[in-house]
Amino acid sequence: MKLREIQRDLEKFIDKEITLEGWIRQARFTKNVGFIELNDGTIFKNLQVVLSKDLDNFEELKKEHLSASLRVSGLLVKTNNAKQAFELQANKVIVLGHSDEKFPIQKQKQSLEYMRTIPHLRARTNTYRAVFRLRSKLAFALHNFFQERGFIYLNAPIITASDTEGAGEMFQVTTQNLEKPNLNDEGKVDYSKDFFGKKSYLTVSGQLEAEDFALAFSDIYTFGPTFRAEESNTPRHAAEFWMLEPEIAFADYNDCMDVAENMIRYMIDYVLKNCKDEITFFNEKIDDTLIERLEKVKDAKFARITYTDAIKKLKEANVDFEYPVEWGMDLQTEHERYLSEKIVDGPVFVTDYPKDIKAFYMRRNEDGKTVAAFDLLVPAVGELIGGSQREERYDELVKSMEDNGLNIDEYQNYLDLRRYGSVVHSGYGLGFERAVMYLTGMKNIRDVIQYPRTVKSFASKN
Amino acid sequence: MKLREIQRDLEKFIDKEITLEGWIRQARFTKNVGFIELNDGTIFKNLQVVLSKDLDNFEELKKEHLSASLRVSGLLVKTNNAKQAFELQANKVIVLGHSDEKFPIQKQKQSLEYMRTIPHLRARTNTYRAVFRLRSKLAFALHNFFQERGFIYLNAPIITASDTEGAGEMFQVTTQNLEKPNLNDEGKVDYSKDFFGKKSYLTVSGQLEAEDFALAFSDIYTFGPTFRAEESNTPRHAAEFWMLEPEIAFADYNDCMDVAENMIRYMIDYVLKNCKDEITFFNEKIDDTLIERLEKVKDAKFARITYTDAIKKLKEANVDFEYPVEWGMDLQTEHERYLSEKIVDGPVFVTDYPKDIKAFYMRRNEDGKTVAAFDLLVPAVGELIGGSQREERYDELVKSMEDNGLNIDEYQNYLDLRRYGSVVHSGYGLGFERAVMYLTGMKNIRDVIQYPRTVKSFASKN
Repeated sequence: MKLREIQRDLEKFIDKEITLEGWIRQARFTKNVGFIELNDGTIFKNLQVVLSKDLDNFEELKKEHLSASLRVSGLLVKTNNAKQAFELQANKVIVLGHSDEKFPIQKQKQSLEYMRTIPHLRARTNTYRAVFRLRSKLAFALHNFFQERGFIYLNAPIITASDTEGAGEMFQVTTQNLEKPNLNDEGKVDYSKDFFGKKSYLTVSGQLEAEDFALAFSDIYTFGPTFRAEESNTPRHAAEFWMLEPEIAFADYNDCMDVAENMIRYMIDYVLKNCKDEITFFNEKIDDTLIERLEKVKDAKFARITYTDAIKKLKEANVDFEYPVEWGMDLQTEHERYLSEKIVDGPVFVTDYPKDIKAFYMRRNEDGKTVAAFDLLVPAVGELIGGSQREERYDELVKSMEDNGLNIDEYQNYLDLRRYGSVVHSGYGLGFERAVMYLTGMKNIRDVIQYPRTVKSFASKN
Repeated sequence: MKLREIQRDLEKFIDKEITLEGWIRQARFTKNVGFIELNDGTIFKNLQVVLSKDLDNFEELKKEHLSASLRVSGLLVKTNNAKQAFELQANKVIVLGHSDEKFPIQKQKQSLEYMRTIPHLRARTNTYRAVFRLRSKLAFALHNFFQERGFIYLNAPIITASDTEGAGEMFQVTTQNLEKPNLNDEGKVDYSKDFFGKKSYLTVSGQLEAEDFALAFSDIYTFGPTFRAEESNTPRHAAEFWMLEPEIAFADYNDCMDVAENMIRYMIDYVLKNCKDEITFFNEKIDDTLIERLEKVKDAKFARITYTDAIKKLKEANVDFEYPVEWGMDLQTEHERYLSEKIVDGPVFVTDYPKDIKAFYMRRNEDGKTVAAFDLLVPAVGELIGGSQREERYDELVKSMEDNGLNIDEYQNYLDLRRYGSVVHSGYGLGFERAVMYLTGMKNIRDVIQYPRTVKSFASKN
């Protein structure tokens, strides 16, 4: 059986003979008794297995190494220990697979940096078991939230010819032989000979496709991997990351912020209820403000202030920021955190940013200077969500594309949405790894993604 | 409001004034009355809106084109029409966004081939609305199935350096300038200058990572995009497709088939219950055996026969197959369908294939000739699932790698799983688009994936 079955219905198994399998996570032996922390990964906490010297292989078991796999039969009994409500008194232990002294995780306190070099094994530790269990449940919570509300899940394409953000930091996808690519008469690479017959990239966002589908289904979301070939080696950037992008028709950006606010509360509520052991662990070992912070946000009404007001308040604050505050600038993490932590003391939507620092597709406001965009800033993290109302007016969109120097021919499909039954619509993006960092207190994106891909590094063979 | 709110609680809204938005999917007018089929995409069926000539913009509304977006207020009333249980008697209609005569979907009966050239608009038709609504619900059903059972969701990496299947049909991912790649002293491409500092590809399968995680969490699944640069232009192959890959520790291949069987039944049950309108549509318009076929499989106990017995039965059948039947051959679709449709008349697991036609990682049976593999074959489709018990014995795995000509140095992480607490484990892959085809009766993979990527073609700008 599995540990999760016991956890789900403890009373049913107490004082019963059970058999289960798992791996040795900790072990200590005296002459006459042994204590093995066994885990099969189906719950966060280990099970303490008590071995007495009466076991016929007691001496052999002493020699087993961490991560060996066992099948243990015994009596499940209650303890008086608060941390460990039950334990297994073994009467038979079979070694399924040995380990040895070269198993790389001998101490519990190995550095996260080192763990990143062994992504195929690090999920066997407490920290990563907690992170990846929570990540899994959070992904499901997001599907739940949107499906319950009737949203349609769109699998946006990964391989694409378009650059949604216009930032140009894209990975190329090719079947050309780089040593000897097919060339045309002019000596240029002949992409008609490439797999798709054209130059192809990895997507940076599913938003353009999300808009297509919102204008057919009203309420949709994407949730899948996206890519940025951005050479920034920071704790917050990865080249491959998962993004959730809801898109909603017949909804302005205020409606859209309502959805985002409800989603954040739902996420927090879900993990507080469904990942209790993991959250307790993070609060004890990673960030002792975590639970307090999450509880507070869960019950808060999210503030909304315009960018223009935010700039005013930041100036009034008279703080010596590294980047001086002035209207027209992009907010830096220091400003975002000051806004949410000091000025608002809670989550805050900053809205109506200057059009020059935002993307071409955002709806222009009447003032001619700002767009109907919003970012959600939260204490301890900064920006968690970015979104906007989309420009639904054909002429305004063409003008914005021209202002942004885009090749309008390449966006005819996008313009079709404004030709054939255009409607007000809005959407946002949630960086999934950012959300996991926010809910765990983990400080580096490399520690919340199973196989992180960042500039000049992905670990060894995985 | 949205159509789904009405469908969910019809009685609440009958004989009430309501306002909703949507797009014109059909329209016909007489001199004095108009009938508009309106849809907002939140349910499968259109809403019939009845317009009387008393509306002050009645004449203008006559001139609106298909796909124009409207906001309609009126009285929701019951009808005596079985197909259309309710309709909306409009008393106010506002045009939100016009369409025009160039809207490319003027007739309902345009070919699917043509629709593939306009992926950004085709979701506005009945067929694709039904397909993509069902696809969304099926994805959620799969998450539900595994999460309910305590499986952990792994986001396997997309960018990778390894070729799981050893087939070599991989897309390369690069930030090199193909016109002028960085070269080393020997005139070869210098991959230390590429983004990741090494030659990188798109993944063909998350299985190797799935095994890593199964040996930490016992029960896990991946669900994400995978890629094959295979130049086969068939109705069943795409270069980019979603794959679901469960991996289970402490489970042999019989246990694993039990999970697969339960999953298939759960999927069928879920869509029959949650996609009634869509399934009815498919049965009427696409494949009139669909419901009968699904009902039958839902209630069937899946047969299991060995490959060796299957070959014997195929030979005894005395059918003139295109590919002659002999032990050691790979089963073709004609054989798979004959097995499930004629011999078993239902779903069947074929097990224990010859080792020479299966992958290196599959567990070798005692007979020395076969491996503990299984394929699930279903009527009308053929292979739906492929899986196996994995070779958990270090020495046997190394031998198999050598037999398959693999570079063992590149698989040290994979071998680590057999060094440090190896356990019996098994897994399988479900091609998600195949499953959607199976549950809808659609015959071409290009019609069940939102933005299909196949050799030498992806449509226009999306």
